Amino acid sequence: MTDRADGRRPDQLRPVTLERGFQTNAEGSCLVTFGGTRVLCSASFTVGVPRWKKGSGEGWVTAEYAMLPRATNTRNDRESVRGKIGGRTMEISRLIGRSLRAVVDVKALGENTIVLDCDVIDADGGTRTAAITGAYVALADAIAWGRANGAIAAGARPLTGSVSAISVGIIDGTPMLDLPYVEDVRAETDMNVVMTGDGGFVEVQGTAEGKPFSKAELDALLELATLGNLELAELQRKALEG
Amino acid sequence: MTDRADGRRPDQLRPVTLERGFQTNAEGSCLVTFGGTRVLCSASFTVGVPRWKKGSGEGWVTAEYAMLPRATNTRNDRESVRGKIGGRTMEISRLIGRSLRAVVDVKALGENTIVLDCDVIDADGGTRTAAITGAYVALADAIAWGRANGAIAAGARPLTGSVSAISVGIIDGTPMLDLPYVEDVRAETDMNVVMTGDGGFVEVQGTAEGKPFSKAELDALLELATLGNLELAELQRKALEG
Amino acid sequence: MTDRADGRRPDQLRPVTLERGFQTNAEGSCLVTFGGTRVLCSASFTVGVPRWKKGSGEGWVTAEYAMLPRATNTRNDRESVRGKIGGRTMEISRLIGRSLRAVVDVKALGENTIVLDCDVIDADGGTRTAAITGAYVALADAIAWGRANGAIAAGARPLTGSVSAISVGIIDGTPMLDLPYVEDVRAETDMNVVMTGDGGFVEVQGTAEGKPFSKAELDALLELATLGNLELAELQRKALEG
Amino acid sequence: MTDRADGRRPDQLRPVTLERGFQTNAEGSCLVTFGGTRVLCSASFTVGVPRWKKGSGEGWVTAEYAMLPRATNTRNDRESVRGKIGGRTMEISRLIGRSLRAVVDVKALGENTIVLDCDVIDADGGTRTAAITGAYVALADAIAWGRANGAIAAGARPLTGSVSAISVGIIDGTPMLDLPYVEDVRAETDMNVVMTGDGGFVEVQGTAEGKPFSKAELDALLELATLGNLELAELQRKALEG
Amino acid sequence: MTDRADGRRPDQLRPVTLERGFQTNAEGSCLVTFGGTRVLCSASFTVGVPRWKKGSGEGWVTAEYAMLPRATNTRNDRESVRGKIGGRTMEISRLIGRSLRAVVDVKALGENTIVLDCDVIDADGGTRTAAITGAYVALADAIAWGRANGAIAAGARPLTGSVSAISVGIIDGTPMLDLPYVEDVRAETDMNVVMTGDGGFVEVQGTAEGKPFSKAELDALLELATLGNLELAELQRKALEG
Amino acid sequence: MTDRADGRRPDQLRPVTLERGFQTNAEGSCLVTFGGTRVLCSASFTVGVPRWKKGSGEGWVTAEYAMLPRATNTRNDRESVRGKIGGRTMEISRLIGRSLRAVVDVKALGENTIVLDCDVIDADGGTRTAAITGAYVALADAIAWGRANGAIAAGARPLTGSVSAISVGIIDGTPMLDLPYVEDVRAETDMNVVMTGDGGFVEVQGTAEGKPFSKAELDALLELATLGNLELAELQRKALEG
Repeated sequence: MTDRADGRRPDQLRPVTLERGFQTNAEGSCLVTFGGTRVLCSASFTVGVPRWKKGSGEGWVTAEYAMLPRATNTRNDRESVRGKIGGRTMEISRLIGRSLRAVVDVKALGENTIVLDCDVIDADGGTRTAAITGAYVALADAIAWGRANGAIAAGARPLTGSVSAISVGIIDGTPMLDLPYVEDVRAETDMNVVMTGDGGFVEVQGTAEGKPFSKAELDALLELATLGNLELAELQRKALEG
Repeated sequence: MTDRADGRRPDQLRPVTLERGFQTNAEGSCLVTFGGTRVLCSASFTVGVPRWKKGSGEGWVTAEYAMLPRATNTRNDRESVRGKIGGRTMEISRLIGRSLRAVVDVKALGENTIVLDCDVIDADGGTRTAAITGAYVALADAIAWGRANGAIAAGARPLTGSVSAISVGIIDGTPMLDLPYVEDVRAETDMNVVMTGDGGFVEVQGTAEGKPFSKAELDALLELATLGNLELAELQRKALEG
Repeated sequence: MTDRADGRRPDQLRPVTLERGFQTNAEGSCLVTFGGTRVLCSASFTVGVPRWKKGSGEGWVTAEYAMLPRATNTRNDRESVRGKIGGRTMEISRLIGRSLRAVVDVKALGENTIVLDCDVIDADGGTRTAAITGAYVALADAIAWGRANGAIAAGARPLTGSVSAISVGIIDGTPMLDLPYVEDVRAETDMNVVMTGDGGFVEVQGTAEGKPFSKAELDALLELATLGNLELAELQRKALEG
Repeated sequence: MTDRADGRRPDQLRPVTLERGFQTNAEGSCLVTFGGTRVLCSASFTVGVPRWKKGSGEGWVTAEYAMLPRATNTRNDRESVRGKIGGRTMEISRLIGRSLRAVVDVKALGENTIVLDCDVIDADGGTRTAAITGAYVALADAIAWGRANGAIAAGARPLTGSVSAISVGIIDGTPMLDLPYVEDVRAETDMNVVMTGDGGFVEVQGTAEGKPFSKAELDALLELATLGNLELAELQRKALEG
Repeated sequence: MTDRADGRRPDQLRPVTLERGFQTNAEGSCLVTFGGTRVLCSASFTVGVPRWKKGSGEGWVTAEYAMLPRATNTRNDRESVRGKIGGRTMEISRLIGRSLRAVVDVKALGENTIVLDCDVIDADGGTRTAAITGAYVALADAIAWGRANGAIAAGARPLTGSVSAISVGIIDGTPMLDLPYVEDVRAETDMNVVMTGDGGFVEVQGTAEGKPFSKAELDALLELATLGNLELAELQRKALEG
Repeated sequence: MTDRADGRRPDQLRPVTLERGFQTNAEGSCLVTFGGTRVLCSASFTVGVPRWKKGSGEGWVTAEYAMLPRATNTRNDRESVRGKIGGRTMEISRLIGRSLRAVVDVKALGENTIVLDCDVIDADGGTRTAAITGAYVALADAIAWGRANGAIAAGARPLTGSVSAISVGIIDGTPMLDLPYVEDVRAETDMNVVMTGDGGFVEVQGTAEGKPFSKAELDALLELATLGNLELAELQRKALEG
């Protein structure tokens, strides 16, 4: 069996923290840590919806992901300076948005918009899964703010559950949970799994980095991911109680 | 059981055609049809690699996906006119590139570059899966061109296998293969599965559009996709023999 | 007298085909072939006009020209990827738009918009003239669609005639009709002539590539172009009857 | 016969002035006036050529046309602020560049680059023809500068002749020379004619604004344009002697 | 004491001219000269305000600064061609806008917009200070136009005073007024001072180019700038009387 | 005398903290707090310089400033999404760069590049002054890293001193130090003062927001700013000792 550089068991998450209220002005905000990965997730609540949603009685939830220039080992140019957003950034922003919408009842939200900003402060693998996990906490706080401020009807329940995400991968033949950067680059297969708090699959994205993977490998990875997501759901629940 | 508008069985592909040599100038070219979806896939072979690959002894394979403005029911503005490429376009371009690289041995390709252009002429669901399936045929022809023209060493085998892709989804509780647009918009779960000709998984992307999906549903979808991809691999083999 | 590589007489067109209905979703569509040049022309009919035309009682007709990346002998980067549209592309788009508007009575069209998309599949000289010639066929079909669907009044005649275009040039002192790429690069003078079906001039664009040309040369070129355009008008008429 | 608002005969130019040396730093510079139209043309001479010309032994001449925001009756947004260059601007820049290259022997110029900047200060019709006419004067001065400073060989003759341009049009059935804005918008046919000083045609661009034009009308317009251009050539000659 | 290349005393302005009405179409226009620096300033008056000012009863004044490509010793690429506006350009545009708004009572202006375009024809140091000084003259004429044309109420006084600007700097220890380019590049400290005609400070921007400057040096520079601005205010007054 | 909302004396700074090492990967990093304003400043050290500096023996220091979308009371769109950088952002980035270069001996730095990224987490007035103050700490740590890692010669002293910045303004006639947002919007005159640790002026930028200011007011503001900057210099010194 492969040993992990940080001494974890294959089915063990990195230390996870969820610090609410990190950014002062946002209606919901959470600094999420998955080991050496840190993402600042903030939720901006606005009364009203984009033009194409007006009059629908439904709300809108969307997300934007970005990296600070020095989140990584060497500095990356800002996408604002390059004048365009890269494919990876867009892909992750879209994934976060879809994942959160999976637990939002837009009818119950009413004609309100919530934008999730996920800015990576330190990147050490799993930034997209940390972002989804932290963004859920910010979203829950923004919805609570909306209810407290009368923008959401008293009896409405815009959240249908919780959502979290974790990465899994196969390294030297062993399925492992929550890969840091050093493991991520070595993984033969890499998968991100987004799940609801009650164990339903929201998004499964598996990619063979080297040789194709088998159904048996896929099954093993999904099992690990399910364990990890249940643990994250519990940590989200506790953070929101605190 | 749900009936399909076009009378197919749930596990049946739409009529598939692979017309080689459609675009005159390209080293490899294939007009692929999945029912009402038509994609022109062309492979451009260039001796040499991008700067960051120079001296590596390895080749490079990449892809660009786009829609003609009137591929869809109503006209879409050109991305060149808007001045930027949308997230969906980038995401699909990246998926096609990764999928094809999964069957290319870049060492055997040598310092050559192959760009796959996948332009959708008619869009009726499954454009990305048709694009991957057709692009493989164009890629195989471009590699044959490279060998015939001495750019690839005589004994080199840059292709490690074939690759194809198919969409699957759950509609009214029934898993179905190869969704046209009318089914795609109704699907509760939507999955694109990229596989090698010998049944290995290259990429699995499943998304819950409505409620989360279960492991059992995931398994049923993967089984359908495996059948579809094996059939596509056979059609690719025949087209390349022709 | 100069011999032509393809054996044509100086006053002879390349083989021309006009295939209607090529793109499924468009209200009018025509794949036009001038020898080795192939352009997909589609007309999108929309009820309503841009803001600056609202309330005028007049319609609007415009065009966009583009090349698929591998229409040419070596691949061209996509203008969407470069993030801006080149001068040549804009110039040709504007020429196609003006040419078609020359045969449209915008009052009779009513407040409807028709956008002509001309995408070059294979480029072998004369792409702009093929585009104008094919776009007219697509336009005629889109107007027929508008009338059949009640968007254009029953008695209205939005088309005042037909329009086509052909290139002419002087090679080694001999005026020649319909230049393929190999002739185009050698031409001392290059001219594109857009004409109505009844022989009126819509646009004449002549350029000395090497030494200036004389009035006598101009006259000889216009005479050739007139012959070519009359032949194209006849082919358009037949295609629209078919 | 139609009277002209400014009292000119149909075959009469507006007052033309060519003021050399207007912009201090340029190697050649000319403020050209055609009646109410004023264009500042400057030629920048640089030793060396763009990368794609290096080692060819040939020089390069190119042009950029632009309007100051308040050259026109109402203010136009800057193209730098809009972030892209319009089709009309590109089309005219390309026309000016081609027109000047028609009288330059790039071999004799040697590996030097001349960029012509044509900035419209006041626009009252004919800005492109004034720009070509003034740019020639700036070009001639820049070439003289190149010779005086040893960048061009003593015996080399990079200029093969002079070049000028004028607009002509048909108004109420009468062919007229050098249209100001008020006439330009009324013209049924509008033509720009670029000629060498010895009466050769460099570029002929005729456009039917309303109904198509006949060969007889085209001939009448070309005759007028020839007269106008010969007069401009004489004014250029005098300005360069001064 | 340091001698100046052009023979001026340290506290002496370069020759200044203010030529009104240079650009024909603008409501106000002034070609300003500070020695070898020439800037064309034009004011465009439009009835109405941007959306975010509608209904406020207040007007809006803004400015755009740009350099013609050959204003400088070597040619600069156009910002429209580069597709973005540089930081220096934006910074100066913002400074000119703020400076002019300092002497405008937007309530008295009413819901009208004035855009100041400052295009540098020749750059020899002090382009931003010349631009502010010339733009004031164009602004005053545009406001007079607004009153004469009934867009500004008869008794309204939108101008609360005049505004001008001048550069000062320390060269070899000596404070000097109105630096041309050759002095500007040698200055240890460089300051631009914008003042009203009655001696109030509107903007003070001082930058240490080499070593930091002291309070005493700052005081000496401000004293020089005050003298220069009073002289400019007098020249503006005379120009507007003319 | 005016009371301050937060109970401070007019000459009192807000609570200032300087937390080193906030961002894991950067060679120098400092989270700076000025009351409710928080800016993450990180310094990226790279061996080598931009092309235009190669072979000069000199290093290069530059800065980029940006706001996280929810740093402010309502969300701002990302500049990467808008596709261009605003004038305010560019202006502040340039100011920070100039301010830090004022204390760097680029010869002593050698051919190394340091980029300062200043990302505003919470904005409550004075973000640019906090950024300069924090960036100095990050810069000092990056230079120490360069020396420790052999990229800077052992005896070299690239830092010639420290630099900090503070805002001052006049509110209801009273000069005040370090304005939070609520005071900033009310200030009649607003000034940012950048100083070295030994009391030299690096940059003085004063702007009259309402009526012009007098020399006496300017003097009072500079006196306050000098006090504030000396205090900041002391806090920087302590932070770097820690």
